[in-house]
Amino acid sequence: MDFPVAPSTFFASDNFSGTHPRYLDAIARCNPGHVIAYGGDAVTQRAVALFQELCDEDVEVLFTFNGTGSNVVALGSLLGHAESVVCTNWSHIHVDETGAPEKILGVKLQDIATEDAKVRPSDLAELATALGNVHHVQPGVVSITQATELGGLYSIEEITALCDAAHSYGMRVHLDGARIANAVAALGGTAETFRKMTFGAGVDAVSFGGTKNAMLGAEAVLLRRGVSSPRAAFLRKQSTQLPSKQRYVSAQFVEALETGLWLETAGHANSMAARLYDAVSDLSDLQVSRPAVNSLYPVLPPSVKTALQEWSFFWDWDISRSQVRWMTSWDTTADDVDSFAAGVRLALARA
Amino acid sequence: MDFPVAPSTFFASDNFSGTHPRYLDAIARCNPGHVIAYGGDAVTQRAVALFQELCDEDVEVLFTFNGTGSNVVALGSLLGHAESVVCTNWSHIHVDETGAPEKILGVKLQDIATEDAKVRPSDLAELATALGNVHHVQPGVVSITQATELGGLYSIEEITALCDAAHSYGMRVHLDGARIANAVAALGGTAETFRKMTFGAGVDAVSFGGTKNAMLGAEAVLLRRGVSSPRAAFLRKQSTQLPSKQRYVSAQFVEALETGLWLETAGHANSMAARLYDAVSDLSDLQVSRPAVNSLYPVLPPSVKTALQEWSFFWDWDISRSQVRWMTSWDTTADDVDSFAAGVRLALARA
Amino acid sequence: MDFPVAPSTFFASDNFSGTHPRYLDAIARCNPGHVIAYGGDAVTQRAVALFQELCDEDVEVLFTFNGTGSNVVALGSLLGHAESVVCTNWSHIHVDETGAPEKILGVKLQDIATEDAKVRPSDLAELATALGNVHHVQPGVVSITQATELGGLYSIEEITALCDAAHSYGMRVHLDGARIANAVAALGGTAETFRKMTFGAGVDAVSFGGTKNAMLGAEAVLLRRGVSSPRAAFLRKQSTQLPSKQRYVSAQFVEALETGLWLETAGHANSMAARLYDAVSDLSDLQVSRPAVNSLYPVLPPSVKTALQEWSFFWDWDISRSQVRWMTSWDTTADDVDSFAAGVRLALARA
Amino acid sequence: MDFPVAPSTFFASDNFSGTHPRYLDAIARCNPGHVIAYGGDAVTQRAVALFQELCDEDVEVLFTFNGTGSNVVALGSLLGHAESVVCTNWSHIHVDETGAPEKILGVKLQDIATEDAKVRPSDLAELATALGNVHHVQPGVVSITQATELGGLYSIEEITALCDAAHSYGMRVHLDGARIANAVAALGGTAETFRKMTFGAGVDAVSFGGTKNAMLGAEAVLLRRGVSSPRAAFLRKQSTQLPSKQRYVSAQFVEALETGLWLETAGHANSMAARLYDAVSDLSDLQVSRPAVNSLYPVLPPSVKTALQEWSFFWDWDISRSQVRWMTSWDTTADDVDSFAAGVRLALARA
Repeated sequence: MDFPVAPSTFFASDNFSGTHPRYLDAIARCNPGHVIAYGGDAVTQRAVALFQELCDEDVEVLFTFNGTGSNVVALGSLLGHAESVVCTNWSHIHVDETGAPEKILGVKLQDIATEDAKVRPSDLAELATALGNVHHVQPGVVSITQATELGGLYSIEEITALCDAAHSYGMRVHLDGARIANAVAALGGTAETFRKMTFGAGVDAVSFGGTKNAMLGAEAVLLRRGVSSPRAAFLRKQSTQLPSKQRYVSAQFVEALETGLWLETAGHANSMAARLYDAVSDLSDLQVSRPAVNSLYPVLPPSVKTALQEWSFFWDWDISRSQVRWMTSWDTTADDVDSFAAGVRLALARA
Repeated sequence: MDFPVAPSTFFASDNFSGTHPRYLDAIARCNPGHVIAYGGDAVTQRAVALFQELCDEDVEVLFTFNGTGSNVVALGSLLGHAESVVCTNWSHIHVDETGAPEKILGVKLQDIATEDAKVRPSDLAELATALGNVHHVQPGVVSITQATELGGLYSIEEITALCDAAHSYGMRVHLDGARIANAVAALGGTAETFRKMTFGAGVDAVSFGGTKNAMLGAEAVLLRRGVSSPRAAFLRKQSTQLPSKQRYVSAQFVEALETGLWLETAGHANSMAARLYDAVSDLSDLQVSRPAVNSLYPVLPPSVKTALQEWSFFWDWDISRSQVRWMTSWDTTADDVDSFAAGVRLALARA
Repeated sequence: MDFPVAPSTFFASDNFSGTHPRYLDAIARCNPGHVIAYGGDAVTQRAVALFQELCDEDVEVLFTFNGTGSNVVALGSLLGHAESVVCTNWSHIHVDETGAPEKILGVKLQDIATEDAKVRPSDLAELATALGNVHHVQPGVVSITQATELGGLYSIEEITALCDAAHSYGMRVHLDGARIANAVAALGGTAETFRKMTFGAGVDAVSFGGTKNAMLGAEAVLLRRGVSSPRAAFLRKQSTQLPSKQRYVSAQFVEALETGLWLETAGHANSMAARLYDAVSDLSDLQVSRPAVNSLYPVLPPSVKTALQEWSFFWDWDISRSQVRWMTSWDTTADDVDSFAAGVRLALARA
Repeated sequence: MDFPVAPSTFFASDNFSGTHPRYLDAIARCNPGHVIAYGGDAVTQRAVALFQELCDEDVEVLFTFNGTGSNVVALGSLLGHAESVVCTNWSHIHVDETGAPEKILGVKLQDIATEDAKVRPSDLAELATALGNVHHVQPGVVSITQATELGGLYSIEEITALCDAAHSYGMRVHLDGARIANAVAALGGTAETFRKMTFGAGVDAVSFGGTKNAMLGAEAVLLRRGVSSPRAAFLRKQSTQLPSKQRYVSAQFVEALETGLWLETAGHANSMAARLYDAVSDLSDLQVSRPAVNSLYPVLPPSVKTALQEWSFFWDWDISRSQVRWMTSWDTTADDVDSFAAGVRLALARA
């Protein structure tokens, strides 16, 4: 018995999906005519205002091209002399950016060994013992990721407690929000959720992701003024992240924030992951946990894994355990999920 | 007597113009469905092949977001330990990138004082006297800009001679081609022109600009294999310039290179600058020279300048001399030029 | 009953001791008259030749001011584009240099969690899985410390096996020898021991320490030519480690290597640590292990610890376990050891 | 007729001379016994206090190994995000440090073309036009050298005016004092002269040179607290410039400042240069100007130059003009000068 027709989308990564048609429309609408470059245009001004309204704080808003760029700009804007960035062993800045922060900022990353990709106040307490000792780098910025690199979530209370601890040691807090929309959708789904999770909790800078959430190369850095460097915009330029024809990034964020599309697409991706979980959770061999946002981490027998990947590609996660990652996206359909789940059942049954 | 209706486009910068509709179409066409991220998609493979065909050399092709990013990646890929970049006092990398090369690469830029923004073999001879002296940075990469920051052009013979000189000292050559299309259009307008001007002349790396030439955030770095670092792609990632949803950059270059649109748009911009020159060159007060590509640098009496800028904005160039810059773009129309020239005449007549 | 008279030297650190009189004499002897600066003098040439003879390899010899400087120069001379340095969680470059390698070289350090401060071939195998993946930094240089930061030793066989593994993955090996003399003294005590432990085992660069071993600000970097950068001397200058009046560093190394003083002083420090061990090893509360080189790591009841530190200062090692470090130096005398051991016994007896 | 016996010292560089015996004595005196490393010793505390008394300001005092190191630490302590260092085309940091500031600090140096190696307020006015423009690096620190790299001097009034101008633009001022003692000796010769020339004039950081002035690897960075980074000491460590056995640097400065030896040696070198000038100034072919401090820059016919260099070595300065540099040192004797002048006369007579 053969596999059915493969789903129309992969369960590989939200980076595999395209751009939402409404963002393409927004790009087309802002296209005609000449406007001031480098963010001097009206669309950018509108997008900045919408972000400031979303944050309900005095934040500086800087649009960028990609997530690594956002992280470098945000971290650089928060760092002082001889300071380090504290993160987890799973963090994207530590593992998946080819050393960009070290290269561009000359900064040391101090990674904390964790099971769940979450920094805890006690971790900061331990690192803080180095403060004032000239032989040790000085922990200056704590970088957390929401949703985490393992598809988990910090609660708002956890973020608040971590920010309180960080601030008590004189550290600042950066939130890598490559999938912040998925997190907001999962924890309340409103602007208020976003606020409470970020600036309201004490976060000082946010890398606000758009690209993984249906946009075309659109990211933003949100910086708490008075804490971040007044030269943050210069650092963006130095970090090669200043878009010249900035209207195309801005127009997408105007569409996202004015219409709530950013939460719609993220909420949809989350719901598709939940649907996939519901469709396979009875298969105890998979050892899969209920997804907090848009990814599942099942364990598959090697032969099953290979057969499934050949049918409908997805990434390995931990080869030593034969663990894989299934990730949904804004354009994953219910039919895709059902078809994929059927394939999984078939493959396991044949094994 | 009042100014006529202002032109529909500004003569401020090719950064002020939007994206050619055919590039937006190319983006829309490649949008549906899931493809491998980070350049593993078929459109990117096609764009790479087209560039390799254009270069007729074994080049590595890396797509990037913007020109500063391209320059950093290209320079970094050519630089060895303790080497400097030689450029002119006018060069974009030296003046207009907020120190990005120094910040990211830790490299010294050695700028040569020039009238015309062009490096000459004799400049290299002088700098080469430092080679081998441990107290001095070692000139390693020569960076030239074509078309130059002053709107001029190196002849193919000049580039060839400069590359010969550089190579004789063990230096490599980078060409910042933010407006390479304008240069190619002006000096022959064919793929062969491009080849002769770059890799054929001995250039080792090219920052190939798209954004100023009607594209949406699309740039490319072309690197001569065997000379550039085999880790160039890693350096792109470190420099925050690896697009995840790379198809959108690639699709535009496929359109550009398959159809020749890149030379059409640049040739048009050049011709509009020539038309503007023809329309005002009899006004001797302007002291304007015939444009090599798409910009003119007239001198205007201050009151005339201000009145014109209020009517149809353009940038100052050298305030001390009351010199301004008029720049055409891919979407400048003949009507825009005629209307603008009429405004200039009117303003001068009233003065 | 009170403590006896405190020892004439502390058991705190070999950094607390002064300079051996024979090194001061060497400095004074080379002092008169004018010589070429920056290493062009005859004494430096002699010191270089002595090191090349010691290594019995084609090594480049660069004298430096301190250990952090040596490490930065050595690592920088071995690193290629986008490469990381692999080290342990205990390594001096990772913990005790305030992020100097990251700051100066823009490099990521990948630390391995270890109990004993030693890198193993299996660690490299795991890290090597990232080779070729553009999203991950590329492990390029393995840095080991001999004697280790925990006072332990790699055997010559262990170093050889590690170098073989590293080279099989295309990595290079750096040995931080801040206490290399103590290691050589412990494992054979001859030039041949040094050779087998370093270049003979496959090590590509050595930070050869002098300052902790009775010298006055004298360190050297030894680099395997053909593997290290031909621009290593330039990198030394860039890293602020080129001594202008270099004769004073060189003259000490001439004395050390011509007369074997470097092994005498280190061997003496080792023997004093052994004597201290013999004098207290019956005190089982101390949980002290036989020292491999010149340091012991006993556990002391807190009150005893404080009383002893007030009497004759030494450093805490792991406060959570009430563990301290006792370190001997080139000038520790047998009387010092006996007096100190007596104090320890007294303090424990009173507790 | 042959040359007489060559002088006992060269007129090549103050880097060629050795260490004053009183500094060697100071080193020997502080040598016995154990003291706290990294500057925790009493001699260092004494040296710091003496410098604070000399400056009569709340300055942070950091001892370092060499001049390049001092400059990097001082500049890094004054620089903010995205800022540049303004200097002259002749400045040591720009020409003679192999790009160390760019490498370590990631900073751009903006060099001003000058005839006399002096920055002027009008230079700052011009550079200040870039302030606030995100495309340009932001001039943040002005670095001047006293005595200049051309052997000249700023007057106290000139330094004051420059500092006033710099501060009016929000810039800070660094003084590279590799030969500050020669400058102080020439302009008054008292502690008060030093004060007026540096912190009294508005200078924010001083690289205080000792090595060229008879010391053994002894330099200091003096930083105005409240202006320089509170993390300056950490930056010193990161820059590899923290001496572990710091007493040897400190003891020399105690000797220098307590006894005034620093001004004696510098004053002597200056007077020997003046004596040399007096002895040859009638030789109009030399085109030599009266030295401000300890160097002369005569022009010699090529054959005379070569013959003299073979007899008693000195450096070329500007080969294109056949200009050389004659430099005196703390140990140049009147006999050396007279003998050298005789040789010059002889060589010219024979030509």
